[in-house]
Amino acid sequence: MEFMTYIGLLAGILTTISFLPQAIKTWRTKSTKDISLAMFLCFCFGVVLWVIYGFYTQNLPVFLANFATFVLAFSILICKLKYG
Amino acid sequence: MEFMTYIGLLAGILTTISFLPQAIKTWRTKSTKDISLAMFLCFCFGVVLWVIYGFYTQNLPVFLANFATFVLAFSILICKLKYG
Repeated sequence: MEFMTYIGLLAGILTTISFLPQAIKTWRTKSTKDISLAMFLCFCFGVVLWVIYGFYTQNLPVFLANFATFVLAFSILICKLKYG
Repeated sequence: MEFMTYIGLLAGILTTISFLPQAIKTWRTKSTKDISLAMFLCFCFGVVLWVIYGFYTQNLPVFLANFATFVLAFSILICKLKYG
């Protein structure tokens, strides 16, 4: 595997796991007042397109990272819709 | 330009502009209690690596999208550090 693929995977791991502390905070506090609904609606839709892009261009870091990001970001979106 | 490059660019535009309503909300309300500091620290670092990855693999959507995402996400991080 090329060096830049490692950088891409590390980038993907970081931007993906970054949503985990936000998801945990949101689940725990059930407080989503400061979180933008427009952000998470738009972000989730964009991430779905990244997954499609990564799949069809056979770009492993883009595909894997965005698939996991979607799961986390979508769970935050659900909380935002639920708690307002 | 290939069709999948358009999908990638659209994905990049959506995941990038998604940070704009969050940044505007944060600038306006100066309230960042519900936003996770760990998320934005980790996310900004990851996005910098995506920029490097996009540059060296000559992947235009990944490079452009993450460059703009960094500017917005970093501004939210600054607000979080300032307002707590």
